Amino acid sequence: MDPVKIIEIKKSVFEDNDKDAAALRSELKQKGVYLLNLMSSPGSGKTTTLIRTINLLKDKLRIAVMEADIDSDVDAVKIKDATGIQSIQLHTGGMCHLDAEMTRQGLAGLDLEDVDLAILENVGNLVCPAEFDTGSCRNAMILSVPEGHDKPLKYPLMFSVCDLVLVNKIDVMPYFDFDLEKCKEYVHLRNPRAEVIPICAKTGEGVDAFADWLLREVNSWK
Amino acid sequence: MDPVKIIEIKKSVFEDNDKDAAALRSELKQKGVYLLNLMSSPGSGKTTTLIRTINLLKDKLRIAVMEADIDSDVDAVKIKDATGIQSIQLHTGGMCHLDAEMTRQGLAGLDLEDVDLAILENVGNLVCPAEFDTGSCRNAMILSVPEGHDKPLKYPLMFSVCDLVLVNKIDVMPYFDFDLEKCKEYVHLRNPRAEVIPICAKTGEGVDAFADWLLREVNSWK
Repeated sequence: MDPVKIIEIKKSVFEDNDKDAAALRSELKQKGVYLLNLMSSPGSGKTTTLIRTINLLKDKLRIAVMEADIDSDVDAVKIKDATGIQSIQLHTGGMCHLDAEMTRQGLAGLDLEDVDLAILENVGNLVCPAEFDTGSCRNAMILSVPEGHDKPLKYPLMFSVCDLVLVNKIDVMPYFDFDLEKCKEYVHLRNPRAEVIPICAKTGEGVDAFADWLLREVNSWK
Repeated sequence: MDPVKIIEIKKSVFEDNDKDAAALRSELKQKGVYLLNLMSSPGSGKTTTLIRTINLLKDKLRIAVMEADIDSDVDAVKIKDATGIQSIQLHTGGMCHLDAEMTRQGLAGLDLEDVDLAILENVGNLVCPAEFDTGSCRNAMILSVPEGHDKPLKYPLMFSVCDLVLVNKIDVMPYFDFDLEKCKEYVHLRNPRAEVIPICAKTGEGVDAFADWLLREVNSWK
Protein backbone atom coordinates (compact mmCIF):
# COMPACT_ATOMS: atom_id res chain seq x y z
CA MET A 1 0.00 0.00 0.00
CA ASP A 2 1.22 3.53 -0.82
CA PRO A 3 2.43 5.59 2.12
CA VAL A 4 -0.11 8.20 3.23
CA LYS A 5 0.25 11.82 2.30
CA ILE A 6 1.66 13.97 5.09
CA ILE A 7 1.00 17.71 5.08
CA GLU A 8 3.03 20.03 7.32
CA ILE A 9 0.48 22.72 8.11
CA LYS A 10 1.63 26.22 8.91
CA LYS A 11 0.42 28.57 11.59
CA SER A 12 -2.41 30.72 10.34
CA VAL A 13 -1.72 34.32 9.33
CA PHE A 14 -5.37 35.34 9.55
CA GLU A 15 -6.33 37.62 12.39
CA ASP A 16 -10.02 36.94 12.20
CA ASN A 17 -10.48 33.19 12.44
CA ASP A 18 -14.28 33.39 12.81
CA LYS A 19 -14.61 35.23 9.52
CA ASP A 20 -12.24 32.84 7.79
CA ALA A 21 -14.14 29.85 9.21
CA ALA A 22 -17.46 31.21 7.93
CA ALA A 23 -15.93 31.70 4.47
CA LEU A 24 -14.59 28.15 4.44
CA ARG A 25 -17.98 26.76 5.50
CA SER A 26 -19.65 28.60 2.67
CA GLU A 27 -17.11 27.26 0.13
CA LEU A 28 -17.73 23.74 1.41
CA LYS A 29 -21.49 24.24 1.04
CA GLN A 30 -21.03 25.23 -2.61
CA LYS A 31 -18.88 22.17 -3.22
CA GLY A 32 -21.37 19.91 -1.45
CA VAL A 33 -18.73 18.76 1.04
CA TYR A 34 -19.79 18.24 4.66
CA LEU A 35 -16.96 18.72 7.17
CA LEU A 36 -17.08 17.19 10.64
CA ASN A 37 -14.60 18.33 13.29
CA LEU A 38 -14.00 15.47 15.72
CA MET A 39 -12.30 16.31 19.01
CA SER A 40 -11.38 14.48 22.22
CA SER A 41 -8.70 13.79 24.81
CA PRO A 42 -5.71 11.68 23.80
CA GLY A 43 -6.57 8.00 23.74
CA SER A 44 -10.36 8.30 23.78
CA GLY A 45 -10.70 6.12 20.68
CA LYS A 46 -11.17 8.62 17.83
CA THR A 47 -9.38 6.52 15.21
CA THR A 48 -11.06 3.24 16.15
CA THR A 49 -14.46 4.96 16.15
CA LEU A 50 -13.78 6.41 12.71
CA ILE A 51 -12.75 3.06 11.23
CA ARG A 52 -15.97 1.41 12.47
CA THR A 53 -18.12 4.29 11.26
CA ILE A 54 -16.48 4.63 7.85
CA ASN A 55 -16.88 0.93 7.18
CA LEU A 56 -20.62 1.28 7.89
CA LEU A 57 -20.97 4.33 5.62
CA LYS A 58 -18.47 3.97 2.79
CA ASP A 59 -20.96 2.40 0.37
CA LYS A 60 -23.40 5.27 0.96
CA LEU A 61 -21.04 8.25 1.12
CA ARG A 62 -17.68 9.19 -0.34
CA ILE A 63 -15.57 9.85 2.75
CA ALA A 64 -12.12 11.32 3.36
CA VAL A 65 -10.24 11.74 6.62
CA MET A 66 -7.63 14.25 7.80
CA GLU A 67 -5.68 13.06 10.82
CA ALA A 68 -4.14 15.95 12.70
CA ASP A 69 -1.24 15.06 14.93
CA ILE A 70 1.77 16.80 16.35
CA ASP A 71 3.98 14.03 15.06
CA SER A 72 3.77 10.48 13.58
CA ASP A 73 1.54 9.17 10.79
CA VAL A 74 0.21 6.20 12.78
CA ASP A 75 -3.45 7.19 12.54
CA ALA A 76 -3.67 8.05 8.85
CA VAL A 77 -2.02 4.74 7.92
CA LYS A 78 -4.38 2.86 10.24
CA ILE A 79 -7.47 4.48 8.68
CA LYS A 80 -6.26 3.88 5.12
CA ASP A 81 -5.36 0.24 5.78
CA ALA A 82 -8.64 -0.52 7.57
CA THR A 83 -11.09 1.27 5.28
CA GLY A 84 -9.37 1.97 1.93
CA ILE A 85 -10.67 5.56 1.84
CA GLN A 86 -8.69 8.79 1.23
CA SER A 87 -6.74 9.47 4.41
CA ILE A 88 -4.06 12.08 4.95
CA GLN A 89 -1.96 13.14 7.90
CA LEU A 90 -1.68 16.76 9.00
CA HIS A 91 1.38 17.61 11.05
CA THR A 92 0.72 20.60 13.26
CA GLY A 93 4.37 21.22 14.15
CA GLY A 94 3.70 21.33 17.88
CA MET A 95 0.50 23.40 17.60
CA CYS A 96 -2.19 22.25 19.99
CA HIS A 97 -5.18 23.00 17.78
CA LEU A 98 -6.34 23.68 14.21
CA ASP A 99 -8.00 26.84 13.00
CA ALA A 100 -9.86 27.49 9.74
CA GLU A 101 -6.78 28.33 7.68
CA MET A 102 -4.94 25.23 8.88
CA THR A 103 -8.01 23.15 8.06
CA ARG A 104 -8.10 24.73 4.61
CA GLN A 105 -4.46 23.68 4.07
CA GLY A 106 -5.49 20.15 4.98
CA LEU A 107 -8.54 20.13 2.69
CA ALA A 108 -6.29 21.25 -0.19
CA GLY A 109 -4.51 17.91 0.17
CA LEU A 110 -7.74 15.97 -0.50
CA ASP A 111 -9.44 15.34 -3.81
CA LEU A 112 -12.69 17.11 -2.82
CA GLU A 113 -14.43 16.37 -6.14
CA ASP A 114 -14.83 12.86 -4.81
CA VAL A 115 -15.92 13.67 -1.29
CA ASP A 116 -19.35 13.97 0.38
CA LEU A 117 -18.05 13.79 3.94
CA ALA A 118 -14.66 15.03 5.14
CA ILE A 119 -13.72 14.28 8.72
CA LEU A 120 -11.07 16.22 10.59
CA GLU A 121 -9.63 14.28 13.51
CA ASN A 122 -8.36 17.20 15.59
CA VAL A 123 -5.37 17.13 17.99
CA GLY A 124 -6.13 15.13 21.16
CA ASN A 125 -6.84 17.96 23.61
CA LEU A 126 -9.98 19.09 25.47
CA VAL A 127 -8.91 22.72 25.75
CA CYS A 128 -7.42 24.56 22.77
CA PRO A 129 -9.24 22.91 19.81
CA ALA A 130 -12.55 24.10 21.29
CA GLU A 131 -11.43 27.73 20.99
CA PHE A 132 -11.06 27.73 17.21
CA ASP A 133 -13.83 27.40 14.64
CA THR A 134 -12.30 25.14 11.96
CA GLY A 135 -14.98 25.94 9.38
CA SER A 136 -16.65 22.58 10.03
CA CYS A 137 -20.41 22.10 9.64
CA ARG A 138 -20.59 20.47 13.06
CA ASN A 139 -18.36 19.75 16.03
CA ALA A 140 -18.46 16.34 17.65
CA MET A 141 -16.39 14.99 20.51
CA ILE A 142 -15.66 11.66 22.10
CA LEU A 143 -15.64 11.29 25.86
CA SER A 144 -14.42 7.86 26.93
CA VAL A 145 -15.74 6.16 30.06
CA PRO A 146 -12.33 5.96 31.83
CA GLU A 147 -12.07 9.77 31.72
CA GLY A 148 -15.06 10.13 34.02
CA HIS A 149 -18.54 11.66 33.73
CA ASP A 150 -17.44 14.96 35.32
CA LYS A 151 -15.51 16.22 32.29
CA PRO A 152 -18.25 18.66 31.10
CA LEU A 153 -17.81 20.44 34.46
CA LYS A 154 -14.06 20.78 33.97
CA TYR A 155 -13.82 21.54 30.25
CA PRO A 156 -16.91 23.73 29.76
CA LEU A 157 -16.04 25.26 26.39
CA MET A 158 -15.42 21.91 24.67
CA PHE A 159 -18.87 20.69 25.64
CA SER A 160 -20.51 24.03 24.79
CA VAL A 161 -19.30 23.97 21.19
CA CYS A 162 -20.14 20.32 20.45
CA ASP A 163 -23.38 19.27 18.80
CA LEU A 164 -22.72 15.61 19.45
CA VAL A 165 -21.01 13.79 22.30
CA LEU A 166 -20.07 10.15 21.73
CA VAL A 167 -19.54 8.33 25.03
CA ASN A 168 -17.03 5.64 24.06
CA LYS A 169 -15.71 2.45 25.76
CA ILE A 170 -19.08 1.66 27.37
CA ASP A 171 -17.93 -1.98 27.53
CA VAL A 172 -15.70 -1.10 30.50
CA MET A 173 -18.45 0.81 32.36
CA PRO A 174 -18.57 -1.89 35.11
CA TYR A 175 -14.92 -1.22 36.01
CA PHE A 176 -15.20 2.56 36.34
CA ASP A 177 -17.36 4.91 38.39
CA PHE A 178 -19.09 6.38 35.35
CA ASP A 179 -22.71 7.52 35.59
CA LEU A 180 -24.20 7.92 32.09
CA GLU A 181 -27.24 9.85 33.33
CA LYS A 182 -25.06 12.29 35.27
CA CYS A 183 -22.84 12.63 32.19
CA LYS A 184 -25.87 13.56 30.03
CA GLU A 185 -27.03 16.04 32.68
CA TYR A 186 -23.60 17.73 32.73
CA VAL A 187 -23.37 17.78 28.92
CA HIS A 188 -26.79 19.46 28.71
CA LEU A 189 -25.74 22.00 31.31
CA ARG A 190 -23.16 23.18 28.76
CA ASN A 191 -25.26 22.68 25.64
CA PRO A 192 -28.93 21.76 26.06
CA ARG A 193 -29.23 20.74 22.40
CA ALA A 194 -26.24 18.39 22.30
CA GLU A 195 -26.98 14.79 21.39
CA VAL A 196 -25.32 12.06 23.45
CA ILE A 197 -24.73 8.65 21.86
CA PRO A 198 -23.14 5.85 23.93
CA ILE A 199 -20.87 3.61 21.83
CA CYS A 200 -18.21 0.95 22.04
CA ALA A 201 -15.86 1.39 19.09
CA LYS A 202 -14.08 -1.86 19.98
CA THR A 203 -17.21 -4.06 19.66
CA GLY A 204 -19.22 -1.77 17.37
CA GLU A 205 -22.11 -1.28 19.81
CA GLY A 206 -23.95 1.97 19.15
CA VAL A 207 -21.76 2.97 16.22
CA ASP A 208 -24.71 2.53 13.83
CA ALA A 209 -26.49 5.39 15.67
CA PHE A 210 -23.49 7.64 14.99
CA ALA A 211 -23.44 6.52 11.35
CA ASP A 212 -27.16 7.34 11.04
CA TRP A 213 -26.57 10.78 12.57
CA LEU A 214 -23.80 11.46 10.06
CA LEU A 215 -25.88 10.25 7.11
CA ARG A 216 -28.75 12.57 8.11
CA GLU A 217 -26.34 15.46 8.57
CA VAL A 218 -24.59 15.01 5.23
CA ASN A 219 -27.86 14.58 3.34
CA SER A 220 -29.34 17.74 4.84
CA TRP A 221 -26.21 19.72 3.85
CA LYS A 222 -26.57 19.06 0.11
CA MET B 1 -15.12 22.55 56.59
CA ASP B 2 -14.02 25.91 55.19
CA PRO B 3 -14.41 26.40 51.47
CA VAL B 4 -11.09 26.17 49.56
CA LYS B 5 -9.29 29.27 48.40
CA ILE B 6 -9.75 30.01 44.72
CA ILE B 7 -7.18 32.15 42.90
CA GLU B 8 -7.95 33.62 39.48
CA ILE B 9 -4.53 33.60 37.87
CA LYS B 10 -3.71 36.11 35.16
CA LYS B 11 -1.89 35.63 31.92
CA SER B 12 1.83 36.13 32.31
CA VAL B 13 3.39 39.40 31.20
CA PHE B 14 6.91 38.00 31.11
CA GLU B 15 8.46 37.56 27.70
CA ASP B 16 11.15 35.17 28.83
CA ASN B 17 9.45 32.33 30.67
CA ASP B 18 12.60 30.20 30.89
CA LYS B 19 14.43 32.94 32.75
CA ASP B 20 11.48 33.55 35.04
CA ALA B 21 11.18 29.80 35.73
CA ALA B 22 14.87 29.56 36.66
CA ALA B 23 14.45 32.50 39.04
CA LEU B 24 11.42 30.90 40.68
CA ARG B 25 13.28 27.59 41.08
CA SER B 26 16.13 29.39 42.78
CA GLU B 27 13.75 31.20 45.17
CA LEU B 28 12.13 27.87 46.04
CA LYS B 29 15.55 26.34 46.71
CA GLN B 30 16.32 29.15 49.17
CA LYS B 31 13.00 28.60 50.92
CA GLY B 32 13.51 24.83 51.01
CA VAL B 33 10.30 24.23 49.08
CA TYR B 34 10.29 21.42 46.49
CA LEU B 35 7.79 21.99 43.67
CA LEU B 36 6.47 19.11 41.57
CA ASN B 37 4.61 19.84 38.33
CA LEU B 38 2.15 17.01 37.67
CA MET B 39 0.66 16.79 34.18
CA SER B 40 -1.64 14.40 32.29
CA SER B 41 -4.66 14.06 30.01
CA PRO B 42 -8.09 14.82 31.44
CA GLY B 43 -9.38 11.93 33.52
CA SER B 44 -6.10 10.06 33.99
CA GLY B 45 -6.49 10.06 37.76
CA LYS B 46 -4.27 12.92 38.94
CA THR B 47 -6.43 13.85 41.92
CA THR B 48 -6.99 10.28 43.12
CA THR B 49 -3.26 9.58 42.82
CA LEU B 50 -2.44 12.68 44.83
CA ILE B 51 -4.86 11.79 47.62
CA ARG B 52 -3.32 8.31 48.00
CA THR B 53 0.22 9.68 47.88
CA ILE B 54 -0.38 12.56 50.29
CA ASN B 55 -1.95 10.24 52.84
CA LEU B 56 1.22 8.08 52.69
CA LEU B 57 3.53 11.09 53.09
CA LYS B 58 1.76 13.67 55.22
CA ASP B 59 3.36 12.52 58.48
CA LYS B 60 6.82 12.80 56.92
CA LEU B 61 6.48 15.97 54.84
CA ARG B 62 4.48 19.18 55.02
CA ILE B 63 2.58 19.14 51.73
CA ALA B 64 0.44 21.68 49.86
CA VAL B 65 -1.44 21.28 46.60
CA MET B 66 -2.42 23.75 43.87
CA GLU B 67 -5.17 22.46 41.61
CA ALA B 68 -5.19 24.24 38.28
CA ASP B 69 -8.42 24.06 36.38
CA ILE B 70 -10.19 26.11 33.79
CA ASP B 71 -13.30 26.14 35.93
CA SER B 72 -14.79 24.44 39.03
CA ASP B 73 -13.21 23.79 42.41
CA VAL B 74 -14.08 20.09 42.52
CA ASP B 75 -10.47 18.89 42.82
CA ALA B 76 -9.21 21.25 45.52
CA VAL B 77 -12.21 20.44 47.72
CA LYS B 78 -11.67 16.70 47.15
CA ILE B 79 -8.00 16.90 48.14
CA LYS B 80 -8.72 19.02 51.22
CA ASP B 81 -11.55 16.75 52.40
CA ALA B 82 -9.56 13.54 51.85
CA THR B 83 -6.19 14.60 53.27
CA GLY B 84 -6.66 17.71 55.42
CA ILE B 85 -3.63 19.44 53.86
CA GLN B 86 -3.39 22.96 52.38
CA SER B 87 -5.18 22.81 49.02
CA ILE B 88 -6.06 25.73 46.78
CA GLN B 89 -7.70 26.04 43.40
CA LEU B 90 -6.14 28.02 40.56
CA HIS B 91 -8.55 29.19 37.89
CA THR B 92 -6.74 29.65 34.59
CA GLY B 93 -9.56 31.60 32.93
CA GLY B 94 -9.59 29.36 29.85
CA MET B 95 -5.79 29.16 29.55
CA CYS B 96 -4.60 25.70 28.58
CA HIS B 97 -1.36 25.71 30.56
CA LEU B 98 0.56 27.37 33.39
CA ASP B 99 3.85 29.18 33.06
CA ALA B 100 6.28 30.29 35.78
CA GLU B 101 4.54 33.57 36.56
CA MET B 102 1.14 31.90 36.84
CA THR B 103 2.70 29.29 39.12
CA ARG B 104 4.20 32.09 41.20
CA GLN B 105 0.73 33.63 41.59
CA GLY B 106 -0.49 30.26 42.82
CA LEU B 107 2.38 29.80 45.28
CA ALA B 108 1.63 33.24 46.73
CA GLY B 109 -1.72 31.82 47.85
CA LEU B 110 0.00 29.13 49.94
CA ASP B 111 1.61 29.51 53.34
CA LEU B 112 5.07 28.41 52.15
CA GLU B 113 6.66 28.70 55.61
CA ASP B 114 4.86 25.48 56.39
CA VAL B 115 5.61 23.58 53.19
CA ASP B 116 8.32 21.07 52.21
CA LEU B 117 6.56 19.80 49.10
CA ALA B 118 4.23 21.84 46.89
CA ILE B 119 2.45 19.99 44.11
CA LEU B 120 1.02 21.74 41.09
CA GLU B 121 -1.72 19.73 39.39
CA ASN B 122 -1.52 21.27 35.93
CA VAL B 123 -4.43 21.62 33.45
CA GLY B 124 -5.43 18.26 31.93
CA ASN B 125 -3.72 18.46 28.56
CA LEU B 126 -0.84 16.55 26.94
CA VAL B 127 0.22 19.38 24.65
CA CYS B 128 0.49 22.94 25.97
CA PRO B 129 1.59 22.39 29.59
CA ALA B 130 4.71 20.61 28.28
CA GLU B 131 5.80 23.78 26.48
CA PHE B 132 6.15 25.93 29.59
CA ASP B 133 8.67 25.55 32.39
CA THR B 134 6.65 26.28 35.54
CA GLY B 135 9.71 26.69 37.74
CA SER B 136 9.16 23.23 39.22
CA CYS B 137 12.05 21.07 40.43
CA ARG B 138 10.73 18.12 38.45
CA ASN B 139 8.01 17.33 35.94
CA ALA B 140 5.97 14.18 36.35
CA MET B 141 3.06 12.92 34.30
CA ILE B 142 0.37 10.29 34.56
CA LEU B 143 -0.49 8.12 31.59
CA SER B 144 -3.53 5.96 32.25
CA VAL B 145 -3.89 2.49 30.73
CA PRO B 146 -7.10 3.28 28.77
CA GLU B 147 -5.24 6.01 26.85
CA GLY B 148 -2.96 3.43 25.24
CA HIS B 149 0.78 2.71 25.28
CA ASP B 150 1.41 4.66 22.05
CA LYS B 151 1.02 8.11 23.61
CA PRO B 152 4.78 8.85 23.83
CA LEU B 153 4.84 8.53 20.03
CA LYS B 154 2.02 11.03 19.63
CA TYR B 155 2.86 13.59 22.31
CA PRO B 156 6.67 13.62 22.11
CA LEU B 157 7.35 16.85 24.01
CA MET B 158 5.31 15.86 27.07
CA PHE B 159 7.32 12.67 27.48
CA SER B 160 10.63 14.44 26.74
CA VAL B 161 10.19 16.94 29.58
CA CYS B 162 9.03 14.45 32.24
CA ASP B 163 11.41 12.87 34.72
CA LEU B 164 8.78 10.45 35.94
CA VAL B 165 5.88 8.70 34.21
CA LEU B 166 3.24 7.10 36.39
CA VAL B 167 1.26 4.48 34.48
CA ASN B 168 -2.11 4.56 36.26
CA LYS B 169 -5.20 2.29 36.24
CA ILE B 170 -3.13 -0.89 35.89
CA ASP B 171 -6.09 -2.77 37.43
CA VAL B 172 -7.94 -2.52 34.10
CA MET B 173 -4.97 -3.70 32.02
CA PRO B 174 -6.77 -6.98 31.13
CA TYR B 175 -9.57 -5.03 29.42
CA PHE B 176 -7.34 -2.84 27.24
CA ASP B 177 -4.63 -3.55 24.67
CA PHE B 178 -1.91 -1.93 26.76
CA ASP B 179 1.64 -3.26 26.58
CA LEU B 180 3.68 -1.99 29.56
CA GLU B 181 7.03 -3.00 28.05
CA LYS B 182 6.23 -1.21 24.79
CA CYS B 183 5.12 1.81 26.82
CA LYS B 184 8.46 1.91 28.67
CA GLU B 185 10.31 1.53 25.37
CA TYR B 186 8.41 4.49 23.86
CA VAL B 187 8.89 6.63 26.99
CA HIS B 188 12.65 5.99 26.88
CA LEU B 189 12.72 6.88 23.20
CA ARG B 190 11.68 10.38 24.31
CA ASN B 191 13.66 10.55 27.53
CA PRO B 192 16.10 7.71 28.28
CA ARG B 193 16.42 8.79 31.92
CA ALA B 194 12.70 8.91 32.72
CA GLU B 195 11.51 6.60 35.46
CA VAL B 196 8.30 4.64 34.86
CA ILE B 197 6.23 3.52 37.86
CA PRO B 198 3.05 1.46 37.30
CA ILE B 199 0.33 2.28 39.83
CA CYS B 200 -3.35 1.86 40.58
CA ALA B 201 -4.55 4.94 42.43
CA LYS B 202 -7.92 3.28 43.07
CA THR B 203 -6.49 0.29 44.99
CA GLY B 204 -3.23 1.93 46.07
CA GLU B 205 -0.98 -0.58 44.28
CA GLY B 206 2.42 0.90 43.45
CA VAL B 207 1.65 4.29 45.04
CA ASP B 208 4.24 3.61 47.77
CA ALA B 209 6.94 3.59 45.06
CA PHE B 210 5.81 7.06 43.94
CA ALA B 211 5.78 8.24 47.58
CA ASP B 212 9.35 6.91 48.04
CA TRP B 213 10.46 8.70 44.86
CA LEU B 214 8.98 11.97 46.16
CA LEU B 215 10.54 11.56 49.60
CA ARG B 216 14.00 11.01 48.06
CA GLU B 217 13.50 14.00 45.77
CA VAL B 218 12.38 16.39 48.51
CA ASN B 219 15.16 15.30 50.88
CA SER B 220 17.83 15.80 48.24
CA TRP B 221 16.49 19.32 47.49
CA LYS B 222 17.04 20.60 51.03
